[in-house]
Amino acid sequence: MNVQGQPTRTITAGRDLVEIIDQTALPHAFVVRPLRTLGEVAHAISSMQVRGAPLIGAAAAYGIWLAMRADASDGALDSARAALLATRPTAVNLRWALDNVVARLGPLPPAARPDAARAAADAIADEDVAINRAIGEHARALIRDAGVRRRPGESIQVLTHCNAGWLATVDRGTALAGVYAAHDAGVPIHVWVDETRPRNQGAALTAWELGAHGVPHTVIVDNAGGHLMQRGQVDVVLVGTDRTTAAGDVVNKIGTYLKALAARDCGVPFYVAAPSPSIDWTIDGAGDTSGIPIEERSPDEVTTVAGTTVESAAGDGARACVRIAPAGSPAHNPGFDVTPARLVTGIVTERGVAPASREGLARLFPERAAPAKGTR
Amino acid sequence: MNVQGQPTRTITAGRDLVEIIDQTALPHAFVVRPLRTLGEVAHAISSMQVRGAPLIGAAAAYGIWLAMRADASDGALDSARAALLATRPTAVNLRWALDNVVARLGPLPPAARPDAARAAADAIADEDVAINRAIGEHARALIRDAGVRRRPGESIQVLTHCNAGWLATVDRGTALAGVYAAHDAGVPIHVWVDETRPRNQGAALTAWELGAHGVPHTVIVDNAGGHLMQRGQVDVVLVGTDRTTAAGDVVNKIGTYLKALAARDCGVPFYVAAPSPSIDWTIDGAGDTSGIPIEERSPDEVTTVAGTTVESAAGDGARACVRIAPAGSPAHNPGFDVTPARLVTGIVTERGVAPASREGLARLFPERAAPAKGTR
Repeated sequence: MNVQGQPTRTITAGRDLVEIIDQTALPHAFVVRPLRTLGEVAHAISSMQVRGAPLIGAAAAYGIWLAMRADASDGALDSARAALLATRPTAVNLRWALDNVVARLGPLPPAARPDAARAAADAIADEDVAINRAIGEHARALIRDAGVRRRPGESIQVLTHCNAGWLATVDRGTALAGVYAAHDAGVPIHVWVDETRPRNQGAALTAWELGAHGVPHTVIVDNAGGHLMQRGQVDVVLVGTDRTTAAGDVVNKIGTYLKALAARDCGVPFYVAAPSPSIDWTIDGAGDTSGIPIEERSPDEVTTVAGTTVESAAGDGARACVRIAPAGSPAHNPGFDVTPARLVTGIVTERGVAPASREGLARLFPERAAPAKGTR
Repeated sequence: MNVQGQPTRTITAGRDLVEIIDQTALPHAFVVRPLRTLGEVAHAISSMQVRGAPLIGAAAAYGIWLAMRADASDGALDSARAALLATRPTAVNLRWALDNVVARLGPLPPAARPDAARAAADAIADEDVAINRAIGEHARALIRDAGVRRRPGESIQVLTHCNAGWLATVDRGTALAGVYAAHDAGVPIHVWVDETRPRNQGAALTAWELGAHGVPHTVIVDNAGGHLMQRGQVDVVLVGTDRTTAAGDVVNKIGTYLKALAARDCGVPFYVAAPSPSIDWTIDGAGDTSGIPIEERSPDEVTTVAGTTVESAAGDGARACVRIAPAGSPAHNPGFDVTPARLVTGIVTERGVAPASREGLARLFPERAAPAKGTR
């Protein structure tokens, strides 16, 4: 999407390096960072310089490429896969991308692996953009339908949680793909942006990318969305996912479940944008989500907040981190929660919108879904 | 409750001044601030140096006293009442306390008003402590019942939102009164503390006061409570209220509604501690809450966060405020939401626990409730 009028991707590959937008510097600075080694890619993922399930997948694929350039042996391939898989436990796209690339490289002689890895990573990146473009078209129709009660010229009101925009992907975004498609087509649209504590990906990233592309938006605290829905100020909720089970249960950023509950209580449609690489076909039972690892991150993310100073001895605009809790108080920081399929109005995939159920997803992806057990 | 082992109240009156704990300095500094004029009291309330519905009521009563010391005329009484009533629109205790004091002073000659105002304010403060002590005993029984599934020695898990502890009152607290009562009686108890954006009263105040009194607790982001309830890590939710209607609908800090939804979805009891001065008997219809003013505060509270620096050019420990959102992104900041009575397991008053309904509250407070309409 656009940054200062220039179409921009979150990750691009050169002759011997990968360049990423360092998302830990946003919204305060736009920093492009080169990555030249497997270790730098793994660090970029674990430190969340790149984040967002689809982008993590693409970055990991490029990480295999950089690893193969240094050492294309079987052992190096195995250890590169293991190192990247360990960076973030929840997003299934990471495993999907690694399995995809490793499956292509395994049969090849080491000498052929670097070029093949690069081609595979490029293909994953391009496929991500194509998937998101398709999701955007399907979501645009949902947004239009959700806005029918708005008068002509009045903005359709979308609420989103965390960042499932283009920064979470290679380009276009998942949950925001439809927002961009609608906005670019001239539909008046406004986005309520959950700030998304503890890391504030909403306030820092979603607000930044919507602003950079010119989409009207307003930042709210995570506590406010329910009240807005009660007062009729939200027409549709659109979120992304780090892993959606074959039964339609949605693992996404902590707090998503609370917004889904409010949407259900207030009669607001709640859609999840899920590119097929975010669907974990190995988890098939409804509610069978206890085996999904929920990443626990540092308690420091809860007790401190990073930003730029607006009033301090250091003067305005310096990067700083402030402690908000007493020094003696411990904190707990689960990164994700599970929204049960029963609270999800529909799952927006590149092939269309599915009911959040085993049957609904299997109808769109018959080649991926396991055969039905028993009932048919 | 205890601060460094010393029993402490949030507000005390001397011969010609009121002393408050400046809650905007917590948890980083414990500052006692003298207030000598009506204007200083009004500023202390509007700037949230004192906050919490019961404490606002007591502070306002002392504000009338300080006003009467300067000018005890009818006009001064009227304008003092109006100035204080305008400081915070949502908490009904403010109106209750002002009406209470003004009703006592109105019939008196001006010369008698200062002493009468002081006596009335002292009575309100002492009554608050007595009410909260009674609420604490009732809530202690609820906490015990909620913890039956815990094994002996295992802590009972409470979740609370915002600060409804002793800092929100003159002493003892409302939602936390039962926690203190249980803890002081030797019951093992642990409190999940919602940080409560945007002003972080949970991370700043609830964590501080629980720590100061020695109650085990853990700070979480507002997004995390639903996940904890899904995983069986919360036995009971206890919150306060700024205004509860006669029909049992609960106005409280923004985000309370989301926790009530999660509690209902997960089968966790959700109790509201409501001293009778927090009950608005003039709002009687179920769901009839659209007339309650929901305070909208500055968008700066959303886009910036205050704390003490942990890494910056200014060195560690300096007070600072950091911006977390892009400079061009607007924000919206509703301060409260309404939790419908249907989501509330019970309302804990000084007279016992009532079902969250017109009939339930009327049974405990027959002298306050309006006569039933029609059905009986």
